[in-house]
Amino acid sequence: MDRTPVTVVGLGAMGRALARAFAAAGHPTTVWNRTPGKASALVEEVGAVEAADVAAAVAASPLVVACLTTYEATTAALAPVDRLPDLVTLNSGTPAGARRMARWAAERGARFLDGAVKNVPEAVGAPGTQLYYSGDEAVFAEHRDTLRVLGGDTSLLGAEVDLAKLYEAAVGATLLPALLGFLEGAALVTRRGLPAASLVPHSVKWLEMIASILPVVAGEVDDADYTRLQASVGLFHEGVVHDGELAEEGGLDLSWHEPMHDLLRRAVAGGRQDQSISALVELLRAPVQPVRGDG
Amino acid sequence: MDRTPVTVVGLGAMGRALARAFAAAGHPTTVWNRTPGKASALVEEVGAVEAADVAAAVAASPLVVACLTTYEATTAALAPVDRLPDLVTLNSGTPAGARRMARWAAERGARFLDGAVKNVPEAVGAPGTQLYYSGDEAVFAEHRDTLRVLGGDTSLLGAEVDLAKLYEAAVGATLLPALLGFLEGAALVTRRGLPAASLVPHSVKWLEMIASILPVVAGEVDDADYTRLQASVGLFHEGVVHDGELAEEGGLDLSWHEPMHDLLRRAVAGGRQDQSISALVELLRAPVQPVRGDG
Repeated sequence: MDRTPVTVVGLGAMGRALARAFAAAGHPTTVWNRTPGKASALVEEVGAVEAADVAAAVAASPLVVACLTTYEATTAALAPVDRLPDLVTLNSGTPAGARRMARWAAERGARFLDGAVKNVPEAVGAPGTQLYYSGDEAVFAEHRDTLRVLGGDTSLLGAEVDLAKLYEAAVGATLLPALLGFLEGAALVTRRGLPAASLVPHSVKWLEMIASILPVVAGEVDDADYTRLQASVGLFHEGVVHDGELAEEGGLDLSWHEPMHDLLRRAVAGGRQDQSISALVELLRAPVQPVRGDG
Repeated sequence: MDRTPVTVVGLGAMGRALARAFAAAGHPTTVWNRTPGKASALVEEVGAVEAADVAAAVAASPLVVACLTTYEATTAALAPVDRLPDLVTLNSGTPAGARRMARWAAERGARFLDGAVKNVPEAVGAPGTQLYYSGDEAVFAEHRDTLRVLGGDTSLLGAEVDLAKLYEAAVGATLLPALLGFLEGAALVTRRGLPAASLVPHSVKWLEMIASILPVVAGEVDDADYTRLQASVGLFHEGVVHDGELAEEGGLDLSWHEPMHDLLRRAVAGGRQDQSISALVELLRAPVQPVRGDG
């Protein structure tokens, strides 16, 4: 079967992983990076073709996958090209950024999908790796098999082009806090002379536990009914007093906890101590701004 | 087979779940709570026996499992009893609190184990539910089958009595930050009119991704070699600029991010931008205090 030729623009760690996966799956793969030197391993190892310039890169394939750091970097890289074929962007950014990118692509005749790779470069191409897209449904339908080369769990969230970035932001919001929590634990056990690796099986299990309660948490948020999860604001608030002792035990700087404690204190002050911890969602919602002209 | 009689002291949601699991598994189960009225469902539904006072409760079984909110509440509840049988505590607290509790128990002749239930009350008794203990190895060996009634994944971390609380603190450090991240995501999608439940499959997958990288993160911490994970401090730092747009998009109060951003800024300022995000562990370690007399 003939595989769709693909061009990958942007050869950072993730872009290289994407290009490698396309080429390994038999797609004629053209690659280009603004600063040279990133393509050689792809050319040598998986037979990718390095384009001489971005116009040649874009002209080589009916599908261009751009994997730069930002939308601004993407439009800067593609700026020399007047007409674009089907374009998929896989970079970080905001929903508003995705909407701006879609307008920019439309002006250049491109059918456009925005997407997100919800994993590390090493996982690209694996059956369980998740990518989701939003935007032009016809583009997704036509290139579904090609896009699935990047990860078996590939889906379209919807036709609204900013949904991928909305979900990326919403889902990704757990990453840095969860990693910091793990690193704090690692600092604690290593101070005791025990390896951080000894935490891993317990932490993996713990993340499974957290995952198992998310349906309940989501249901509480959707119904604004914070009575289901048996883990109250008050229970978390009681744990705050342990921080000083723990910081001393582990030689830790726990100052990143302070705003979380503040949320708990404000929730308790607001009478939510017997509500489930899910009630903190109410405090993460900013106060509604007064309508202009009210003041 | 004769099951070991067990006494459960403290009948909050978790204590009731423990008592229910013991009774359901055929252990003669005595229960007691400082404030009355918590035992009736256990007496009626699973045949637990409610003791008249704490002395009678403790005298009824060779194994007492105390599940109060703190060590202080535990010693207060058990204070009327001079001699204690084998004692297991399952409450929140710090490693230092566990060491104090062990001394208190030893003064009353008790062999002592401290432990942690790494799950919600609803999960008590399930094959995958994790509990770990530390302290008297003979007590754990003798009561292993009884303790395993509470969760199939039951283990002894070691003979040092404070290890359970050390690991509980270390492992548990991800919980509130990860939940806040999820709730932030929930606030974002619900502001768009989409249900928080639509996040759950993606977030579960995301937590699996986070779990999958923990061995690498732990290895980086153990070797102080922050070159392995392809997720750099700089990459996270670049994401900081999205916060303002996201806060506006979702009507969110993201001020709890501020100290995380501060960690990223300080890591970049310290030349760590190309290091893996694991390098933040170095910033979570408090500066070593000067030895007294140095100043």
